[in-house]
Amino acid sequence: MSGGSYTPHSDGQPAGGLLIGVGVGPGDPELMTLKAIRALEGANVVAHFAKAGNPSNARATAARFLKPGTPELQLLYPVTTEHSTSDAAYRNAIDRFFDESAAQIEQELEAGRTVAVLSEGDPLFFGSYMHVHIRLMNRFRTEVVPGITAMSGCWSAAGMPIVQGDDVLTVLPGTLDAEELVRRLGQNEPTVVMKLGRNLPKVRRALVESRRLENAIYVERGTMHNERLMPLAAKADDSAPYFAIVLVTNRWWQP
Amino acid sequence: MSGGSYTPHSDGQPAGGLLIGVGVGPGDPELMTLKAIRALEGANVVAHFAKAGNPSNARATAARFLKPGTPELQLLYPVTTEHSTSDAAYRNAIDRFFDESAAQIEQELEAGRTVAVLSEGDPLFFGSYMHVHIRLMNRFRTEVVPGITAMSGCWSAAGMPIVQGDDVLTVLPGTLDAEELVRRLGQNEPTVVMKLGRNLPKVRRALVESRRLENAIYVERGTMHNERLMPLAAKADDSAPYFAIVLVTNRWWQP
Repeated sequence: MSGGSYTPHSDGQPAGGLLIGVGVGPGDPELMTLKAIRALEGANVVAHFAKAGNPSNARATAARFLKPGTPELQLLYPVTTEHSTSDAAYRNAIDRFFDESAAQIEQELEAGRTVAVLSEGDPLFFGSYMHVHIRLMNRFRTEVVPGITAMSGCWSAAGMPIVQGDDVLTVLPGTLDAEELVRRLGQNEPTVVMKLGRNLPKVRRALVESRRLENAIYVERGTMHNERLMPLAAKADDSAPYFAIVLVTNRWWQP
Repeated sequence: MSGGSYTPHSDGQPAGGLLIGVGVGPGDPELMTLKAIRALEGANVVAHFAKAGNPSNARATAARFLKPGTPELQLLYPVTTEHSTSDAAYRNAIDRFFDESAAQIEQELEAGRTVAVLSEGDPLFFGSYMHVHIRLMNRFRTEVVPGITAMSGCWSAAGMPIVQGDDVLTVLPGTLDAEELVRRLGQNEPTVVMKLGRNLPKVRRALVESRRLENAIYVERGTMHNERLMPLAAKADDSAPYFAIVLVTNRWWQP
């Protein structure tokens, strides 16, 4: 009340902050929703995950919608996320990281601020946001703005109907072991394989073994300006970004 | 060139029309993307599917973004879509309907117009649009604008992380037979059951038989103003809209 005195954390927000997971979609900024854009306009703090040394993909997608001057909280993964969660050392490192990330965000929420956490794709579908969400959801108000998933962006870019009628869709992380991948792909159903990166050679072998390589489409940076889309059989090497995706159908579509 | 003479189908569009499948998302108009809104602004004709006697859900979601005066093409299902596609009479009726729908849209495309076909959720994920797409894609330019799926809308509304790490997601249509539903649910993995409607009693029995009823969340009209969200075990009756969804997880999430 005393004009001019500095009061930390009293910036006019209602007491008790709001945590918002904001899905920014697969990469094309035009694929952001009105709701996501409004969430960014109303946020006091914008948080985003990235690998150390790399810019955040989610932030790059959302950049044009960030209010200039909004404080940002960068959350840097201590390790790559391409490992299987059955690796104990990996699990420990990543759990500690999410604990620390939640603690940083908690400070902002305690101060009554609205914190928007950017998520590539959809926040609760393989997104890092969920690890913060489950740590804070019992103590703070939360809201989740869904986003277009990478897989929707990829099958739309390919113009490839993925499931219809009585089809069953299976979404596999490429981190599964080779045997499990072969077993799943062998069911001969529409399948999406995510989290490629260093898992691509293993995924390719599983597709060969399950006799489905010919039906596999590889999509890299789907919906972005530098998108690459080709039959996996025609892809010359096995290097892939972590966010590349393989779509496997049973048939090419005919009227 | 002769001023004032009437030339059919010469309305200033480039020759050869453009077919756009426009995902409008799960129901909240704020969950439409910028790209979908721009597609509607640029369309010469807006087409939408509905049951006879019912308004189109997709049109209701997109209504505020339609340019006044844009011609609309209403495509009315001759039958309900809650049947299994293994029913031959149903298949014949619905195939004929999609042939006729494609023929109507084709006339507009032949005239060089841009036709936006509204799709609830995502156009190529169990959407009616795909049946038009596969009938016309070899003769006309097509574009697909992905949309937020109903399932993303539902798990976001529930604040329920659906898959993380090495999880496998299975998406089942409720039209599958009871035995098949039990077999799939018995795998004890994160599962989404779509296309409920008259299939709900069968889905409920399958959840009981696979001992997963306690982990099932029922979401009706997810993201809409009249959304209903509850444990399926607490839902008193078995009437459900076709677009209701059941989300099945293995655990409620704990930090």
